[in-house]
Amino acid sequence: PLGIMLGIECVAALHDAGERLRFPIEIYAFGDEEGSRFPLAMLTSRAVAGTLDAVPRDFDAYRQARHPGAFAYLEAHIEQGPVLEADGLALGTVTGIAAQRRFGIKVGGRAGHAGTTAMTLRRDALAAAAAMILTAEQEALAAGGDRVATVGTVTAGPGAANVVPGAAIFTLDVRAARDADCAALADSIIDRFGQIAAVRGVTLSVDALHSLPASPCDPQLMTLMDGALAGEGLRVRRLVSGAGHDAMILSALCPTAMLFIRCREGISHNPAESLLPEDADLAARTMLRFIKSLEDIHRA
Amino acid sequence: PLGIMLGIECVAALHDAGERLRFPIEIYAFGDEEGSRFPLAMLTSRAVAGTLDAVPRDFDAYRQARHPGAFAYLEAHIEQGPVLEADGLALGTVTGIAAQRRFGIKVGGRAGHAGTTAMTLRRDALAAAAAMILTAEQEALAAGGDRVATVGTVTAGPGAANVVPGAAIFTLDVRAARDADCAALADSIIDRFGQIAAVRGVTLSVDALHSLPASPCDPQLMTLMDGALAGEGLRVRRLVSGAGHDAMILSALCPTAMLFIRCREGISHNPAESLLPEDADLAARTMLRFIKSLEDIHRA
Repeated sequence: PLGIMLGIECVAALHDAGERLRFPIEIYAFGDEEGSRFPLAMLTSRAVAGTLDAVPRDFDAYRQARHPGAFAYLEAHIEQGPVLEADGLALGTVTGIAAQRRFGIKVGGRAGHAGTTAMTLRRDALAAAAAMILTAEQEALAAGGDRVATVGTVTAGPGAANVVPGAAIFTLDVRAARDADCAALADSIIDRFGQIAAVRGVTLSVDALHSLPASPCDPQLMTLMDGALAGEGLRVRRLVSGAGHDAMILSALCPTAMLFIRCREGISHNPAESLLPEDADLAARTMLRFIKSLEDIHRA
Repeated sequence: PLGIMLGIECVAALHDAGERLRFPIEIYAFGDEEGSRFPLAMLTSRAVAGTLDAVPRDFDAYRQARHPGAFAYLEAHIEQGPVLEADGLALGTVTGIAAQRRFGIKVGGRAGHAGTTAMTLRRDALAAAAAMILTAEQEALAAGGDRVATVGTVTAGPGAANVVPGAAIFTLDVRAARDADCAALADSIIDRFGQIAAVRGVTLSVDALHSLPASPCDPQLMTLMDGALAGEGLRVRRLVSGAGHDAMILSALCPTAMLFIRCREGISHNPAESLLPEDADLAARTMLRFIKSLEDIHRA
């Protein structure tokens, strides 16, 4: 909720100072950005951006969530990576968000008794999935650079200690700063999955859950963010986001900007996630400075 | 429930014929032989055999379940393997049950953001587990013969598509007809797990859930079973059981015998498990013949 709190603090500071800007400020707390609860990530920001196309026609609430239009979107977030900490910097200007593809993978083998099914006669769906999980890791390592592939969930079916798995289900998440790199890595991994399935005599089902293109931040807004950082006496640092954010969805609605805040050891999605209170304070002041500077472009 | 039904049918047949044998017949429907619901397999037969040592002293029901003594135990079961079907035989005399070891494996890595944690900096518990699952398969294949190793369940934690897994939990089941082969295979797999954990910088925890020695059936009872098969006009066939059965627990109480019944394609632990009604009928008649022949040794 840090990003939301920072937005509220900025508006509160403007209110306390009796300042009114020439444009309205809206603060959004989007739900399930992660796609952890529902198969589609960033559900609510999609609704606001008006890009939630798969919703049935009579879901009026989703239709009404569509924003009538905005001239800028700002999102603050911990970096979730080690770059700012390594550089000894509290804040950074985000240049854009990496492309992301996510898949649901199903492997179908043949369930059998763990004691009586000879190793050579097995069609073990989990062993096949294990080979695929390793392959995803190897392909991403071989691709190098900012390219990553992750299998975050897996289940074996029927799922008993003494049964050779007849089914395995897992997720595959692939990211890269450039769309082409992301697509190439995803394609090569899925190709290898197919080869493994063929060799092992198991079925493979690949469900493309979503494909989010790389989302560059707006150059003019990046310049304003650099200015806000400099205005607070901070060294300007620009960096790409390996993580997806609602900003990539909102870019369909208006130009976007993002501010990254240093976090401890780059740890995120983990109870050990942590940032310094003074960094949060600096972020609030930088955001307020950025928001005020929007008057320059809103007037134009 | 086939084994239980066959026992009931045999007693019903004796009752209908007005026959009373010189010894009592008890029919047991043991619970959770598989160890699918509780970490320890064959819980209830252990209670009857009096080998459920880990139960707290005040669990009187378990103490009272202990059998005061028997002179023979008979268990009928589908083969769960392809041997009888391949030989065109309905029934076979079991020579003994393979040794079995079961382990709970925990791998501890470091959870992280799937988009921002560089591949080279990951300590991915699931990727490590995947390497271990493949190793278990490879070691069992290399060992050959009747030796098998199975990973039937796996979960990744925290378990979201966009989080590098910080934990993975899976089961390992190892079996072989001879105790020494089973122990050697389990040891070599666990050794390899340790090597994988060391290379990948993840923690490894191995919990030995149970170790069941190979359980040979009683030679005298096997001879009686062969006689019952021959008495029904069937060719005598002896075979080992790769699957564990309550008989291996009851062998602590008294001599044991087992009758195997042909099943379709050796499929078991699977909804496609199937046997012929005429084979079940033959099994009931063979069991009745076997039970009556016990009078020969009970008199002695």
